[in-house]
Amino acid sequence: MTLREKIAQLGSRWVGNDMADAELPADETINVAPMEDVFATDAAPSLAEASRDGLGHLTRVWGSVPQSVEQGVAELIRQHEVVLESSRLGIPALVHEECLTGFTTYGATVYPASIAWGATFDPDLVERMAAAIGRDMAAVGVHQGLSPVLDVVRDYRWGRVEETIGEDPYLVAMLGSAYARGLQSAGVLATLKHFAGYSASRAGRNHGPVSMGRRELLDIILPTFETAIATAGAGSVMSSYSDIDGLPAGADSWLFTDVLRNEWGFGGTVVSDYWAVPFLASMHRVAADNADAGMVALTAGTDVELPDTIGFAGLLDQVKSGELSEELIDRAARRLLLQKARLGLLDPDWTPAGSVGDAAVDLDSAENRAIARQLAERSVILLDAGSSLPLSTDLRRIAVVGPCAGDPRTLMGCYAFPNHVLPRYPDRGLGVEVVTPVDALRNELPDVELLSAKGCDVMGDDRCGFEAAVTAAQDADVCIAYVGDLSGLFGHGTSGEGCDAEDLRLPGVQGELLDQLLATGKPVVVVVVSGRPYALGEIADRVAGLVQAFIPGQEGAAAIAGVLSGRIVPSGKLPVQIPRHVGGQPGTYLQPALGSVESAGISGLEAAPLFPFGYGGSYTTFEVGDLRMSATEIGNDGEFTATVRVRNTGDRAGDEVVQLYLHDVVARIARPLKLLTGFARISLEPQAAVDITFRVHADRTAYTGPDLRRIVEPGEFEVMLGTSSQDLPCRAVVRITGDVRVVGHERMLTTPVDRTPVTADAPGGG
Amino acid sequence: MTLREKIAQLGSRWVGNDMADAELPADETINVAPMEDVFATDAAPSLAEASRDGLGHLTRVWGSVPQSVEQGVAELIRQHEVVLESSRLGIPALVHEECLTGFTTYGATVYPASIAWGATFDPDLVERMAAAIGRDMAAVGVHQGLSPVLDVVRDYRWGRVEETIGEDPYLVAMLGSAYARGLQSAGVLATLKHFAGYSASRAGRNHGPVSMGRRELLDIILPTFETAIATAGAGSVMSSYSDIDGLPAGADSWLFTDVLRNEWGFGGTVVSDYWAVPFLASMHRVAADNADAGMVALTAGTDVELPDTIGFAGLLDQVKSGELSEELIDRAARRLLLQKARLGLLDPDWTPAGSVGDAAVDLDSAENRAIARQLAERSVILLDAGSSLPLSTDLRRIAVVGPCAGDPRTLMGCYAFPNHVLPRYPDRGLGVEVVTPVDALRNELPDVELLSAKGCDVMGDDRCGFEAAVTAAQDADVCIAYVGDLSGLFGHGTSGEGCDAEDLRLPGVQGELLDQLLATGKPVVVVVVSGRPYALGEIADRVAGLVQAFIPGQEGAAAIAGVLSGRIVPSGKLPVQIPRHVGGQPGTYLQPALGSVESAGISGLEAAPLFPFGYGGSYTTFEVGDLRMSATEIGNDGEFTATVRVRNTGDRAGDEVVQLYLHDVVARIARPLKLLTGFARISLEPQAAVDITFRVHADRTAYTGPDLRRIVEPGEFEVMLGTSSQDLPCRAVVRITGDVRVVGHERMLTTPVDRTPVTADAPGGG
Repeated sequence: MTLREKIAQLGSRWVGNDMADAELPADETINVAPMEDVFATDAAPSLAEASRDGLGHLTRVWGSVPQSVEQGVAELIRQHEVVLESSRLGIPALVHEECLTGFTTYGATVYPASIAWGATFDPDLVERMAAAIGRDMAAVGVHQGLSPVLDVVRDYRWGRVEETIGEDPYLVAMLGSAYARGLQSAGVLATLKHFAGYSASRAGRNHGPVSMGRRELLDIILPTFETAIATAGAGSVMSSYSDIDGLPAGADSWLFTDVLRNEWGFGGTVVSDYWAVPFLASMHRVAADNADAGMVALTAGTDVELPDTIGFAGLLDQVKSGELSEELIDRAARRLLLQKARLGLLDPDWTPAGSVGDAAVDLDSAENRAIARQLAERSVILLDAGSSLPLSTDLRRIAVVGPCAGDPRTLMGCYAFPNHVLPRYPDRGLGVEVVTPVDALRNELPDVELLSAKGCDVMGDDRCGFEAAVTAAQDADVCIAYVGDLSGLFGHGTSGEGCDAEDLRLPGVQGELLDQLLATGKPVVVVVVSGRPYALGEIADRVAGLVQAFIPGQEGAAAIAGVLSGRIVPSGKLPVQIPRHVGGQPGTYLQPALGSVESAGISGLEAAPLFPFGYGGSYTTFEVGDLRMSATEIGNDGEFTATVRVRNTGDRAGDEVVQLYLHDVVARIARPLKLLTGFARISLEPQAAVDITFRVHADRTAYTGPDLRRIVEPGEFEVMLGTSSQDLPCRAVVRITGDVRVVGHERMLTTPVDRTPVTADAPGGG
Repeated sequence: MTLREKIAQLGSRWVGNDMADAELPADETINVAPMEDVFATDAAPSLAEASRDGLGHLTRVWGSVPQSVEQGVAELIRQHEVVLESSRLGIPALVHEECLTGFTTYGATVYPASIAWGATFDPDLVERMAAAIGRDMAAVGVHQGLSPVLDVVRDYRWGRVEETIGEDPYLVAMLGSAYARGLQSAGVLATLKHFAGYSASRAGRNHGPVSMGRRELLDIILPTFETAIATAGAGSVMSSYSDIDGLPAGADSWLFTDVLRNEWGFGGTVVSDYWAVPFLASMHRVAADNADAGMVALTAGTDVELPDTIGFAGLLDQVKSGELSEELIDRAARRLLLQKARLGLLDPDWTPAGSVGDAAVDLDSAENRAIARQLAERSVILLDAGSSLPLSTDLRRIAVVGPCAGDPRTLMGCYAFPNHVLPRYPDRGLGVEVVTPVDALRNELPDVELLSAKGCDVMGDDRCGFEAAVTAAQDADVCIAYVGDLSGLFGHGTSGEGCDAEDLRLPGVQGELLDQLLATGKPVVVVVVSGRPYALGEIADRVAGLVQAFIPGQEGAAAIAGVLSGRIVPSGKLPVQIPRHVGGQPGTYLQPALGSVESAGISGLEAAPLFPFGYGGSYTTFEVGDLRMSATEIGNDGEFTATVRVRNTGDRAGDEVVQLYLHDVVARIARPLKLLTGFARISLEPQAAVDITFRVHADRTAYTGPDLRRIVEPGEFEVMLGTSSQDLPCRAVVRITGDVRVVGHERMLTTPVDRTPVTADAPGGG
């Protein structure tokens, strides 16, 4: 290959984002990626020009315009042909697409948002979802999916909280790895993003500077990536837009070379986030121009520039002038070409359009929807059954109010095609069938009269619908208020990329609407359908029931309705806390003593959340007890098991999520008081019991010490088990003996779980 | 000296905090230091026991109980005698006291809080104040003052914002160094605190964990300390309570030994903040117990434990058992004894009670009050003259409302004796004469009828005074509302140590009061008397005038009244920004592009403050222009001058603060878009002009690069001059040539300023 040809492999071309196709008023622009309007200009090269020497990636052939599968396949084949015909070697381009809440294309199933996966605590189900997504993508010729998001939530105000799996690194690592495994099981490369630190941007501002030291990075932010690479063999990593302590991720060779490659042994490709390379010049100002930015990014470890070749366009001149070593070009090209070879793109029998020729592809199959429904059902969180949940069968009239009751878009995340791209095509519907919450409730309760009134919009300050909503509430036996978010992009929503929040008030005038509804004296059940947690401290004492549904996807409305009616026994658990106050960010449950209620004498600020991490109620009851420890002392490379018996002590079948937390009593640095170290979702019939055994290796206590080495440190560790981060009735202390042991990348990253059904005459207590 | 005797020098004893003397109900405790109630127990040793082998420090003999100078001197002599008589060697203890807003003792002048010094941009005046404070302390036998606070504000919610000098490192460095110089000019050691990082605690929570990398620490947090040591020779440094990236400051030998001692050459003593040593065990959990905490702290570099010997009580056993090297004891003892020798404590003619024997000491002298008044006058900030300021001489009736109008305590900071200690003695008055804002206005406008109504308290939700306040507003020509903070400690106030805020709403129901007053349609002038900036976006468009008075001290009310009446031409400048929204923290003006308005396409969050850093209005007008640069290009070790002409173009004499900001156009890390690099307060008669020349060395562009070395980097720098961080009409570009140059501690830390009065026929433009 010539130098030109190698460099061309590091580039990409996004044909569909010229917005020529958009059906919007001429003066209106809706960006689907940050500052897209700046980059998607007429000056962009044609695909043929961009492919003169070959092309690395084709960007979002499926996810840019609404099209049928047939149209998409035709366009895909057309683009491939242009690439193949334009270049000497005829190496096909790798086709990537977004797929965070499902394949981001017209008519494909919209699964719950990642934050809802987090609420399921169910890696197996997430893996099944990802496998289904991967199958659909592979079927229509997509090679790489730009998911999962492995950012750990650090600030609830950040718009992309909905795209994350929650605020605990272990939960994110387990579910994110499951996603990567599932997607790759279908032959589609997973892309771990955003590497790294993005979620901690200052004040929750998208792309904002991140104040963070190396220990926090190593202990909270990076383990999700390390785990997904080690346990799921994820094929690609995407660079984060943010800087940490002033250094942009894309310019950080420590991150992309020392850690990712040398320490973790990652052999896949690093792709830039969209325009993250030119942003090094225009936004971070660490490069003089786009060409300089390209050199900085390549040198630090970016292999492929997305979504278009802008920064990397200067690489040829830089190598020729001697500024840049050709070895760096070779390094990146080798990684991508190896990936293309493994994907079969270099095989003689490769065909451009996946398996679509073999059979008709239904991107919204009944199987997909069943998985979406199951995820939604397991993700809805009962915060408080109050006086009214499950709804009495005696109810005759229910007022259904709030802006989320009738708008199907509020069920879907910002990377769902209907919210991501269709706002550019206001007349194209949703592409999939989505039942609204009010219709789902009508289906759920066919004999009940529903009085429907929106009350207000998600955004804005129009209060003229308040009166009708209040009247409906007054006329009904109970009022159900669906409030929360509308996901969108860059200011076109209240949650989602670029839709950050100043504070944690419910958006718009929804809080005022609730106040007015509560003032009627009628029982008001509040369902929060949102992408981030909102401060509910001002209403929690006054509601007749409180349900948190993190963006539950296409099948979400029926899941919510089922929880309200009692058809479904709720089993979702909080992957983020529900705060009491609108301020107080950033702050998650991962606090050392001085960030916690234990420092009440030092700051007047209340530290306790309204509902803690891991919490979720049920319509049955569970007892967690009879802790049995295999040891009270282990060596610095040993392991112990902790077994608890979980019994469904209520009268309905249900699921519980048993959680194990560790507390490092004395360490060399201030450590979180509790750290989720294992969890298991279990299903139990009434009165049934199961023994859950967590196998905890000493490595699971490791942390980054003062000298930045990861160590297992001898001493006492409190082991706590229960059903939320605050309800932990089973406690024991394990002492680790021996010397401080430095732990390398080979460490034990997971806590295996064994389940033993308990029969009536089982030994071991009860 | 024996080992015991050396160790005893590292300890301290606080006799006065047993609270035996407090005049409070038995069940009420008011802490003056964090968790004081936990430590001030009956089990504490007597002073004699504590001094068996000698004693390092006597803690707060003057600042713990209300007492006359005579009583204080007697108690001081008594305590000294106990120490001398209890020990073999008879080395006197060093006496330290708080002195942040003046000597923290009964009856001493209460100066404006530090945040108000920041608003003056007047180092000379701050130095005069500190010299006056020092003279009073020296006169009554105090050797060391626990000031100034050199923390740079990072989050407005933090309660201790009022104790800082603002959000810019250069402003804090210049004024803080001036304070240290002034205090030490009287022979009293200054104590630079809190070393380091305290101000960036998570969510503004006192002592909360600090997420911060080394670059931010080196570029924003540490330069204030470095400057005060290098330019003022400050004698002592106090450790911060907080941890940075998990490592408590008190356990961080990189900070206290590598940086402070080895790099900066600091030769004084490091004292612990109160109970910061045992907190290493009880709160940070990096030590197994108090004795372990003592060893950790001493090893890292703490020399003297304050306020009582708790952690260091175990040092003897640790040395004996071989756990701890005696060299570390010697190192610390040598530092303190050297300090005692230099202070004359080891001289044969040393007497215990300072110079008080020579003359009567007036701790609230007319000279003191004149300085306090001048500081207050220069600190009051006119945010918006609106339609009503200065007040018309035609006014007949003014409504004076709001909780700060009639409460003298709202004028004083949390380290002022009346707010710090006197809440324990509710019947002892204030100890000094303090005119309230309403009385000051009465003095200012003797011919105007004032209708006074409080409206509400600073804290709490009692709205029953709203009606009277609204009535007063309706009956008056104009309404002046004094709203803001009451400083206190640990929940007993809305600003001050341990009084952190969830968000930036005005405390209590004061925002609602303003809404009701504004609804009357009468012109409402709002005066915010506060320790932190509050979000004023919701009222700014509706007020008839807006004044920000950061806690202005004992003489502050007249200064505010003078600004309102027009007697005083306001000249204060914002040392922190005034935000528009109650959320959005942390965030100060020091933002790179991605934290600024330049990233508007990336986040929907508004980034612009309501009033920017450095802003402050006037009743006259100034023109800043005619920029003359000595060079457009300098070497990497060179310097340039930037000269601007400032003319008072109005018809009243007044002061302006000319500000120079630098912008590093391209760097290796994302840098703030503007960084205050020089400033000068000038006084000009109407139509008078002066040429201000800033001499900027290349070192002033230095920053910490990716490899953590401080570098001057070649390239373009934009030089911007004007009267606030946003009003910068004079701009030029300077190019630094040559190679990257690593800058050591010897660097140029300041930007000298020359002033040349302009005569009518002066050359150089006009």
